[in-house]
Amino acid sequence: MAKQINDFQDGDHFKIFALVKDAQVRTTQKGANYLALTFGDQSGEIAGNLWDVTDQQIQDFQSGVVVQVEGQRTSYQGRPQVSITAVRLATVDEPHQPELYVERAPETEDQIKGALRPFVMAIKEPTWRQIVNHLLAKHGETFFQSPAAKTNHHAFVGGLSYHTLSILRLSQSVIQQYPGINESLLYAGALLHDLGKTVELSGAVGTQYTIPGKLLGHISLIDGEICAACQELGIDYESETVVLLRHMVLSHHGLLEYGSPVRPELLEAEVLHHLDELDASIMMMQSALSKVSPGEFTDRLFALDNRSFYQPDENKKK
Amino acid sequence: MAKQINDFQDGDHFKIFALVKDAQVRTTQKGANYLALTFGDQSGEIAGNLWDVTDQQIQDFQSGVVVQVEGQRTSYQGRPQVSITAVRLATVDEPHQPELYVERAPETEDQIKGALRPFVMAIKEPTWRQIVNHLLAKHGETFFQSPAAKTNHHAFVGGLSYHTLSILRLSQSVIQQYPGINESLLYAGALLHDLGKTVELSGAVGTQYTIPGKLLGHISLIDGEICAACQELGIDYESETVVLLRHMVLSHHGLLEYGSPVRPELLEAEVLHHLDELDASIMMMQSALSKVSPGEFTDRLFALDNRSFYQPDENKKK
Amino acid sequence: MAKQINDFQDGDHFKIFALVKDAQVRTTQKGANYLALTFGDQSGEIAGNLWDVTDQQIQDFQSGVVVQVEGQRTSYQGRPQVSITAVRLATVDEPHQPELYVERAPETEDQIKGALRPFVMAIKEPTWRQIVNHLLAKHGETFFQSPAAKTNHHAFVGGLSYHTLSILRLSQSVIQQYPGINESLLYAGALLHDLGKTVELSGAVGTQYTIPGKLLGHISLIDGEICAACQELGIDYESETVVLLRHMVLSHHGLLEYGSPVRPELLEAEVLHHLDELDASIMMMQSALSKVSPGEFTDRLFALDNRSFYQPDENKKK
Amino acid sequence: MAKQINDFQDGDHFKIFALVKDAQVRTTQKGANYLALTFGDQSGEIAGNLWDVTDQQIQDFQSGVVVQVEGQRTSYQGRPQVSITAVRLATVDEPHQPELYVERAPETEDQIKGALRPFVMAIKEPTWRQIVNHLLAKHGETFFQSPAAKTNHHAFVGGLSYHTLSILRLSQSVIQQYPGINESLLYAGALLHDLGKTVELSGAVGTQYTIPGKLLGHISLIDGEICAACQELGIDYESETVVLLRHMVLSHHGLLEYGSPVRPELLEAEVLHHLDELDASIMMMQSALSKVSPGEFTDRLFALDNRSFYQPDENKKK
Amino acid sequence: MAKQINDFQDGDHFKIFALVKDAQVRTTQKGANYLALTFGDQSGEIAGNLWDVTDQQIQDFQSGVVVQVEGQRTSYQGRPQVSITAVRLATVDEPHQPELYVERAPETEDQIKGALRPFVMAIKEPTWRQIVNHLLAKHGETFFQSPAAKTNHHAFVGGLSYHTLSILRLSQSVIQQYPGINESLLYAGALLHDLGKTVELSGAVGTQYTIPGKLLGHISLIDGEICAACQELGIDYESETVVLLRHMVLSHHGLLEYGSPVRPELLEAEVLHHLDELDASIMMMQSALSKVSPGEFTDRLFALDNRSFYQPDENKKK
Amino acid sequence: MAKQINDFQDGDHFKIFALVKDAQVRTTQKGANYLALTFGDQSGEIAGNLWDVTDQQIQDFQSGVVVQVEGQRTSYQGRPQVSITAVRLATVDEPHQPELYVERAPETEDQIKGALRPFVMAIKEPTWRQIVNHLLAKHGETFFQSPAAKTNHHAFVGGLSYHTLSILRLSQSVIQQYPGINESLLYAGALLHDLGKTVELSGAVGTQYTIPGKLLGHISLIDGEICAACQELGIDYESETVVLLRHMVLSHHGLLEYGSPVRPELLEAEVLHHLDELDASIMMMQSALSKVSPGEFTDRLFALDNRSFYQPDENKKK
Repeated sequence: MAKQINDFQDGDHFKIFALVKDAQVRTTQKGANYLALTFGDQSGEIAGNLWDVTDQQIQDFQSGVVVQVEGQRTSYQGRPQVSITAVRLATVDEPHQPELYVERAPETEDQIKGALRPFVMAIKEPTWRQIVNHLLAKHGETFFQSPAAKTNHHAFVGGLSYHTLSILRLSQSVIQQYPGINESLLYAGALLHDLGKTVELSGAVGTQYTIPGKLLGHISLIDGEICAACQELGIDYESETVVLLRHMVLSHHGLLEYGSPVRPELLEAEVLHHLDELDASIMMMQSALSKVSPGEFTDRLFALDNRSFYQPDENKKK
Repeated sequence: MAKQINDFQDGDHFKIFALVKDAQVRTTQKGANYLALTFGDQSGEIAGNLWDVTDQQIQDFQSGVVVQVEGQRTSYQGRPQVSITAVRLATVDEPHQPELYVERAPETEDQIKGALRPFVMAIKEPTWRQIVNHLLAKHGETFFQSPAAKTNHHAFVGGLSYHTLSILRLSQSVIQQYPGINESLLYAGALLHDLGKTVELSGAVGTQYTIPGKLLGHISLIDGEICAACQELGIDYESETVVLLRHMVLSHHGLLEYGSPVRPELLEAEVLHHLDELDASIMMMQSALSKVSPGEFTDRLFALDNRSFYQPDENKKK
Repeated sequence: MAKQINDFQDGDHFKIFALVKDAQVRTTQKGANYLALTFGDQSGEIAGNLWDVTDQQIQDFQSGVVVQVEGQRTSYQGRPQVSITAVRLATVDEPHQPELYVERAPETEDQIKGALRPFVMAIKEPTWRQIVNHLLAKHGETFFQSPAAKTNHHAFVGGLSYHTLSILRLSQSVIQQYPGINESLLYAGALLHDLGKTVELSGAVGTQYTIPGKLLGHISLIDGEICAACQELGIDYESETVVLLRHMVLSHHGLLEYGSPVRPELLEAEVLHHLDELDASIMMMQSALSKVSPGEFTDRLFALDNRSFYQPDENKKK
Repeated sequence: MAKQINDFQDGDHFKIFALVKDAQVRTTQKGANYLALTFGDQSGEIAGNLWDVTDQQIQDFQSGVVVQVEGQRTSYQGRPQVSITAVRLATVDEPHQPELYVERAPETEDQIKGALRPFVMAIKEPTWRQIVNHLLAKHGETFFQSPAAKTNHHAFVGGLSYHTLSILRLSQSVIQQYPGINESLLYAGALLHDLGKTVELSGAVGTQYTIPGKLLGHISLIDGEICAACQELGIDYESETVVLLRHMVLSHHGLLEYGSPVRPELLEAEVLHHLDELDASIMMMQSALSKVSPGEFTDRLFALDNRSFYQPDENKKK
Repeated sequence: MAKQINDFQDGDHFKIFALVKDAQVRTTQKGANYLALTFGDQSGEIAGNLWDVTDQQIQDFQSGVVVQVEGQRTSYQGRPQVSITAVRLATVDEPHQPELYVERAPETEDQIKGALRPFVMAIKEPTWRQIVNHLLAKHGETFFQSPAAKTNHHAFVGGLSYHTLSILRLSQSVIQQYPGINESLLYAGALLHDLGKTVELSGAVGTQYTIPGKLLGHISLIDGEICAACQELGIDYESETVVLLRHMVLSHHGLLEYGSPVRPELLEAEVLHHLDELDASIMMMQSALSKVSPGEFTDRLFALDNRSFYQPDENKKK
Repeated sequence: MAKQINDFQDGDHFKIFALVKDAQVRTTQKGANYLALTFGDQSGEIAGNLWDVTDQQIQDFQSGVVVQVEGQRTSYQGRPQVSITAVRLATVDEPHQPELYVERAPETEDQIKGALRPFVMAIKEPTWRQIVNHLLAKHGETFFQSPAAKTNHHAFVGGLSYHTLSILRLSQSVIQQYPGINESLLYAGALLHDLGKTVELSGAVGTQYTIPGKLLGHISLIDGEICAACQELGIDYESETVVLLRHMVLSHHGLLEYGSPVRPELLEAEVLHHLDELDASIMMMQSALSKVSPGEFTDRLFALDNRSFYQPDENKKK
C-alpha cells in the first residue's frame, strides 16, 4: 500500500495523493499572495504553503479537491509542514475521489447498523421504542455519516453512530454486572443522547456548527425533536414515561457547566453520563497516543483538561 | 380593617382568622402527639404548636382550612410563634374562604391581563406572535394564577404574570432608550421565558415542584412546548425564526451554572436576562425591606447570595 | 425470617433483637440523664432515647452489645425513631453475636477471594505482580473485612474488597471492548488503588479515621507502602516500572481537589479513575433507591453533589 | 462625505486622511527597521507596516499626527491591513486636526451636560447634592472628555459622561416603575460611580492606566475624593448620610471579584450595579454587532465572558 | 488563684464569679420564659439556662454585669453547660468590675505602646510618618483597646494593637533577611493596615460591626481616613508617595475575593499580606490547640477553611 | 570586569563570551535552515538567529558550548535579540568553561552547607534527625546543585538548598516570636519539604521534568523516599512520629489544588506552608524588579497569579 502522510519523517522527500482539506489565500507582510494549504488522508494531515500563486492555482486548489503533491517534509514551529515543490490536480485515472482520503470509524456503516439493531429491539417500553424508531428513521442517513464532534473525540465519518454503539456495548456490560438498571431506558437514552448533533454539526467534511447548533445546542435540539415527534405520534410529551426519556438526554453532560440544563437524577441517567465520558476519553487518549512513540508524552488534549498522556516504554506494554 | 398576623408584636394577645398553610402531626421526644401548624394571611405567616391533640383535631386542622386561632405571640429561636390557647374551624358565616388569606400580586388579574395585551400586539413577526398566542391560550388560566417561584421572588398568586409584565415594562423603557433592539423578539421572549413554570410548579397554594419540573426544569419545558406547538401549527421548529425565539427562552438564566443550556448570544437575549434578574432582585429586596424597621438589616436572602440589606434611617430616605 | 428494623412502619409496635451501634449519655435541658441509643441490624438503623436511665443501664447498653428492644415506631423531625417501652441484653441462648447484625457485601468473603484470584494471576508484569502479592499478603485479613468508606459507598463489612472486585469486572469489559489497554497495569492498579484504606479506617464496626488516615490519607499511605515493599523486595521504587504503578494509585481520584497529588496521565489511570467513580456512584444510588418507594425521590446524597434520585413509578421499570 | 476606513473592502485601493494612533519602530528578523503603524478615523482602525523606513519618517509619523495614507486593503492573519504605497503628513490646508479623527459619544458634550443637569437638581438630600456638585466642579472638564474605559465599553471621547447619563435615564425608568427607591441616592450614586476614572485613565487619546489608577483603582479613588471633599466642606465622612453614598460607589461592581470591596447592601446600590452592567453590555454588543453583516457572529467579546453575538438575517429584524 | 471556668470538668460542682456576656429572654415551646445566659472570664465561656425567671431576674442579669453563679457542669449537644442552682449579682465588696473578666492581649497596653514606638520612628519618609502619627493620635485610645476581629483571631482587648505589633516584629526579621525592602513603607503600611477596625467594630466588649463597618469595611474606612488626613495636612492624596501607602492598606487582604479592591503590586504590599495571614493563622491555631489535649483534634476553624488541627502526643513535642 | 548580556541596550554593538543555552535547527517558511540560538551568562539571556547555517555550524553550536558572539542588540516583538554578525567557539585559552556562565545562588555551596548544619543539629527528635541525615546523605550532592524549580523562583544552581536555607532562617524568627512551635518538627519538615525535586528535575542546566517527576511529583517522591528510608533503617513508617514528618512534606503546598494530597493540620505544617510561599514570592519579585527601572512595572509573573509589580521612583525608596 502506498505510503501516507503520517508515514514520513522530517527531511523525507515525498509525492502522494491527498485531499485538500483547507485552502486560504493569504498575503505576505510585503503584499504577495500565497496559498496556505492543508492536505489530508486517512493517516493524518499536513500543512504547506504554495508561494507566488497564480489565479489559476487559487481557482484549482480549493477545499475538497484531490491533488498530487510533491515536496519535502520539514517542521515549522514544531509542526510538520511540507515544502511544496510541485502540486497538481489528480486526474480521473488516478484515485481522485475525496471519500478515499477521509478518516472513518473502525467499523463500517453496515457493521455499525447491524450492531445497533439488537439494542433498539431490546427496548421493551413501547413509547420509548416508538420515539427512538421515529427519530432514527428521520435522521438515519445523517446519523451514520456524522462525526460526533467538530474536533476532539470521534471527529470522523461515522463517529456519531460509532460512539453511540460503544456506549451501548458498555451499557450492556454494566447492566449485566449491576441489578436494577432499567435496560430499556438506558438503551433508549444512549441511542438518542447525541442525535441532536445531526442538526448541530454541518456534516462530516469541513465540519462546522450550524446556526441552530450554536444558538440551541444538540441537547435542546434533540429534546425539541422528541417533543415534536410525540406531538406527531399522539403521545403526551409531558407524561412521566416521556419525561424520563427526555431527562436522559437533557442530563447526559452531567453538570450544568457542561450544558445540561438539569443534572442526572435517575440511576440510568447517571450511568449514561459516566459511560459517555468514559468512551469519549478513551477515544481521545487512544488517538493521541497513536501519534507518539514509547517514552513520549502526547500533545496537551484540550478536552481532557489540557493534560498530556504518557506512552510507556515498549517493554512496559505487556 | 381587622388586624393581621404581621400587625402583632411579641407578648400581644390575639384572636384572628387565618388559613392553615401547613399541618404536621409530630411526636415529642417522650412520645406524645402534637400538631405543628403554620397559619397565614395576606400579611404573613406564623407557626404554632397544638399540644396533646385529639384525633378529631388532627382530622379538622389540615392544610387549606380556615380557622379562628387565639393565643399569645412569643418567639422561639428567633422566629415568631403563637402560644395557642384556642383554635376552631371558621364557620360558613365567618370569612372562611381560603382565597381571602393568600398573598396576591399588587395588581389584579384583570389589570395584568389588560396591561399585557398591548405587548402581545406589538409583536410584529407573525410566527412569533402565532406561537405566543397559542401558548398563552393553552396555559392562560394557570399563567395568571401561578406564582413565579416556590419561594424567593414573586411567590404569590399571580406572581408569574406580574413578573412577566414587569419585565415587559422595563423592556419598553430599554427599547426607547437604545436603538437597534428587536422589539418583537424581546417581547415574545419575555412573554414566554417563564411560562414553563405553569408546568414546573404545582400551583399557587402549597407550591411544590412537579416531577416534570424536577426532571426537566421550566426552561426545557417551555422549549419543548414551543416545538410541539410548531409541529401542531405546521411551523418548522428549526427554522432560524423559531430558533431565535427558542434561544431567548433557553438562554434567559444567563449562565450555564444557573440552568441555561446556552448563554445569551443575541442582543435581545442578553437584555432579557438582565431585566429578569433586575426585576427579581428588586422584588426580593422590597419584600425583605418591608419587614424591617429603619436602621435594621433584613434577614440574609439566599437567592441574593446570602446578602442582607440595610434599611436606612427614615430621615435618609428623602 | 424475623422482621427487621426497616420492615416496620410508623405506628407499628415491635420487639426485635438488634445491635447497639451507638450509645451516648446525654442530659436534658433541665438536667436529667438519658441514653441516646442507635439500634441496627442488616436492614438498617433506628434511634431511640431511654429516659431516666439508671447507672446499671448506662453500664449495660454500650456500643457493640446485642439487645432485645421493644417499643413503637414514631418519627421525630422526619427521622424514624423508636419510643422504647423495654430493653434488655440478649442472653447467650438468643442470637447475641454482634456480627449477625452488621451489613455485609452481597457476596461472601470466600466468593470475593475466589473471584479476585484470576485478576491477580492475569498480571503478567512480574514486578507489579510481586508488589501486589506482597501487599495483599500483608493486608489481606483487613482487606477482606474493611469497608470502603466511613459512610457513603460500600460502607459495610467487606465493602473494600467488593468494590475492588467490581472495578476489576468493569475493567475486564473495558479491556475487551477497547484495544491497547495494558491489562496488567489496570488490574494491578485496581487491586491496590484503595488498599491504603485498611490503614486509613479503623475497621468495619464504628468506623473512624485513624490518625495516619487523617494526616496522610489512603492515597499516600498505599504509595508509601509500595515504596517500603520495594525496598524490602530489592526493587527500585523510582524505576519506570514502579513509577507507572505508583501513578495509578496516586492519580485515581482524578482531580487534585479530590486529593490526588497528580492527575491521570496514563490511559490506564484515566480508565481506573472513571471506573472507580462509576462503581461508587452506582452503589450509592442503588442503596438510596432501595429505601424509597416508586414515585419518590431519595434523600440528598452528599457524595453525589447533594443530588437526590428519582425512583420511577413501577410500570416504568420494565 | 469622504469614504472612511471601515468603508473599504479587501482588495480596494484607497487614499485617505487618518490619525496615526500608534507608531512603533520594529526590526525584521533579519535586522531591517520598519514602522508598524495604526491609522484611525471615526469609523475605525487599520494597521499597516511601512518598510525600510528612513530616520525622517520615524521622526514624522508618530502617534497623534494626521497623515494622508495611500495603499491597498488586504488581510493578514484575518485582520484587515493596508499595504502602504505612500504616506505623508497632512498640511495645514488639509483636515489635519487630530480631533477630527477620534470616535465620540452619540450626543455632543453640550447635549450631555444639558441632559445631566435635571438629574443633579433632583438630588434632594443636601449633603449628597453638595458633594456631587463639589466633585463635578472639580473634575468637570475631564469628566466630559474622558472615555469610560481603556477598551471595551464607551471607549471614546465623552464616553464616561455618556455612560453616566445612560444609567441615569435607566434609573429614572426604574424609579417610575418601582415604588420605594430613594431617587436622590440613586442619582447621586450614579453620577459619582465612575468619576474616579478621570484619575484612573490618562485621557481620551492613547488611553492608558495611570499609576494611581493601577495601584488604587477608580473605585477607591472616588471614595477617597469623597472623604477629602467632606473634610474640605466640613462634613463628617463617616456619618450615615455619607456612608450611604460611599457604599453606592464602593459596591457598584457588584462582586468582590470585580473589585468592589463590599457587595451591594442597599436597594439603590443593587439597582445601580444592575443598570451599570446593563448599559455597558448593550453598548459593547451594539458596537460589535455594527461591524458584522446579517447572518454573522461578532468577534468574541472579552468583557462579556468571551461570547460572540449573532446578527440575525435582515428579514428577522422586524 | 481561684478556679476559672475552663478549670472545671463535666460533673464538677462550682461556684464562681463571672461576667454575663450574653443574656436573652426566651420562651419554651410550651410558653414559659427563661434566661439563656453566657458567662465568661479570662479562661473562657460557658452557657447556662435560668428556668422560670422572674421579672426582677430578667432586669438584673443583663449583658455586662458580674454575678456569682453556682451549679454543676454538664454537656448539652457536645457543648459544656452549667446547670444553674443559684445566681446573684456580685456586691461592691466582691470582684465586681467587668474588666476583670475579659480576655486580654499577652502583653500590657504599656508594653505594646513601648514596643510600637521604635517602629514608628523607623519610618524615614516624612509624609508617611506624618500620616501615621496623625492617624495614631486620632484613633490611639481606641486602637489600644480594640480587638482585631469580632471572632476569629485576636478577638480580645488590645488584640488590634498586639496583632499590629506582631506583624511589625515579623517585618523586621524579613527586612533583615532580604535586601531591597523599603523599611519605611512596610512599617507604615503595617501600622495602618487594620486601623480602620477602630471604626468597623463597636469595641472590645460585645463586639459588633458598626453600620459604617458593614457598608464600607475597614479597608475603605482607613483609606478614606488617609485621604481626609492628607486634606487636613495639606498633602496631595493622589501623589505617588501617598498612593504607595494607600496601596499598602487597600491590598493587604491579598485577593479581591477577600475584600481588597486591588491585589498587591508592590514588594512591600505582598510581604505585608503574607505576614498578616501568617500572624492571624498562628494566633488562631494556638488558641484552638490550647483547648485540646494531646492526641486530639481541635474544632473546625471556620477562618482557616474549616480545618481542624492535631495536637500531637506530648512525647512528640520535643 | 567585562560587560555582560544585560549591560547592553538596543542598538549597542557587542562582542562577548557566552554559553549556548539552547540551539534549534529551524526552517524558514521558504525552506532554508537556520539556527535559533539562546545565549546566556550570569546576567541573563538573549536570543539570536544564525541564518543560512552550514552543517558544520549546526554541529558546533549546540546547547552547552561556550562561544564568542558578535553583533548588535535589537528587539523583535518586544524581546531583546542579537543580530549576529559573527560567532565562533571559545578556545581553551579563553574563558570556555560552561559553569562560568550559569546563574548561581547568592551564597556559595560551602556557605550554604555551613549555614544548614546548625539547623540539622537543632532537630532533637532522634527519628526525625536520623531520617533527615539519611536522606541528605543520599541526595546531598544533587541537593546542593539543583535549582528549586524549572522556571519561576530559585531557578539557578544551588537554588534548592538556598531556598531551604531561607525558609529555615525565617522559621527561626517565627519560633523565637511565637511560643509552642515544635522546633525539631519545623526544621525537619523544612529540610525535607522540597528534597524530592532532586528526582523531579533533571539538574541545573537545561532543567527538565523527569518521567518520575511528571508522573508522581516531588511531594510524593520525597514521601516515598521517607518510607523506603524507614524500611531500611528499621523504623515504622506509619508510627505517629513518622506520620507527623510525612504530613509536613505532604501538606506543604497548602491546598489540594496545588498538589498537596492533604491540607496542613499541624501548627508547624501551616507555618512551613506560609514560609515556603513567602520566600518563593520574595525571590520572584526581587528577581523581576531587578530587571526594571524606577517608575516601571515588571512583566506579569505567572506564578504570582499573573500580577506585575511596580518599582517606585527612586526617591520613594528611602
